[in-house]
Amino acid sequence: MPRYALKIEYHGAPFAGWQRQKDQTTVQGAIEDALARLEPRAHTIAAAGRTDAGVHALAQVAHCDMQGDWTPFRLSEALNYHLKPAPVAIVACAPVAGDWHARFSARQRRYLFRILTRRAPATLDAGRVWQVKQPLDVAAMQKAAALLVGKHDFTTFRSTICQADSPVKTLDRLDVTAVETPHGTEVHFDVRARSFLHNQVRSFVGTLERVGAGSWSVSDVGRALAARARPACGPVCPPEGLYLAGVDYDDDPFTPSF
Amino acid sequence: MPRYALKIEYHGAPFAGWQRQKDQTTVQGAIEDALARLEPRAHTIAAAGRTDAGVHALAQVAHCDMQGDWTPFRLSEALNYHLKPAPVAIVACAPVAGDWHARFSARQRRYLFRILTRRAPATLDAGRVWQVKQPLDVAAMQKAAALLVGKHDFTTFRSTICQADSPVKTLDRLDVTAVETPHGTEVHFDVRARSFLHNQVRSFVGTLERVGAGSWSVSDVGRALAARARPACGPVCPPEGLYLAGVDYDDDPFTPSF
Repeated sequence: MPRYALKIEYHGAPFAGWQRQKDQTTVQGAIEDALARLEPRAHTIAAAGRTDAGVHALAQVAHCDMQGDWTPFRLSEALNYHLKPAPVAIVACAPVAGDWHARFSARQRRYLFRILTRRAPATLDAGRVWQVKQPLDVAAMQKAAALLVGKHDFTTFRSTICQADSPVKTLDRLDVTAVETPHGTEVHFDVRARSFLHNQVRSFVGTLERVGAGSWSVSDVGRALAARARPACGPVCPPEGLYLAGVDYDDDPFTPSF
Repeated sequence: MPRYALKIEYHGAPFAGWQRQKDQTTVQGAIEDALARLEPRAHTIAAAGRTDAGVHALAQVAHCDMQGDWTPFRLSEALNYHLKPAPVAIVACAPVAGDWHARFSARQRRYLFRILTRRAPATLDAGRVWQVKQPLDVAAMQKAAALLVGKHDFTTFRSTICQADSPVKTLDRLDVTAVETPHGTEVHFDVRARSFLHNQVRSFVGTLERVGAGSWSVSDVGRALAARARPACGPVCPPEGLYLAGVDYDDDPFTPSF
């Protein structure tokens, strides 16, 4: 059976997350249903990152196995036709070897988190940013973020329902940047690791926001990490500012443009 | 009566445009209704640009006259409270002299138009870009756009219901740029003039898109302009890619940040 890698963009708001669930609208379910319109049978696709309810994707990656010999162009066009009007689209499609796996072949996951700092309610970007009403001290957030980079036991920053075997992960990057936009100042988080624990990014961002707001010190974050205890975490932030921004593979199956 | 300048951001989708209309939801109507919650009486506000149905604003400017002596902070907070949950927000507010007028004091209006060029349907940016499925020849569009800059009789690019006294306007700028975004290549139009005719920007963009797609030549645009006849215009493009990006005044009433 020919295998295809799919690069997928979606708006998280209408979905109960990536993973198929009974009686809930999910991204995986929507794509598997669309595949069943092309080849009527049960389909199961695997994805690089199982995003939570409300989380967006700029470039989720999954793979599917087909019986027919589809050209990537025809497969993505047909899937997009059946996915409409749900806000999920196949933005790239490429044939891959039978042992290529969207989840297990992935070398790195990249997440973007956007905080909009202003008092006036978001309008054009409502549902696409986490809005906080006060300015944030980005320099302090950068110092605290630096404490989290590297190999650590991240029990503090892991949901109690996380199913990963170990809380020890290597965080490759946690860059915090102030970005001027037409809507005001945003604080962007560029977070990269081979793999993440459940709720890890939102636990980081919620905790670092407390530093930016001045209610936590930089060293409070170091102590929270060292505690290796979930109650030591700051508040987990809401999902609407989080984007799965990309997945890296040693052998990127996608051509640069589509 | 103290007068206040308001800088307003809105998502155009739910509105039948800026201008108050009987039995229709409009931006002007929403703000005037919110003002009536603060000072119960009839309010009439004037805006720099009367945007059409579906057109967005990053920075529309209007002014209002109040009986009470509001601080700009309290006035904008109270208006935003009453505007919720409609996607319209007062992002800046400033006291102005009694003869300052959002429309008549304006020196320049700036519009942004966004075309997203890709085959896969827009998801995160649905309703915020005009999507065309083929790549566009930006160099050709730039050449054609250059023919439109300056003082011309723009009858060709003016809606037949336009109420302006004269079709002669000076177009200060019509820059066309390719912009790489996480969603694919966009073509942005930066369009500036002291004032615009009705549907002028969307007539420009719809015509220039035909040039980018190769079905019109650059000189076809020159001929269309010279025809000074509405039927010579290309197709008027849809509103969802259009943003009123800013209004310039000799004496900008707004402090740089809010």
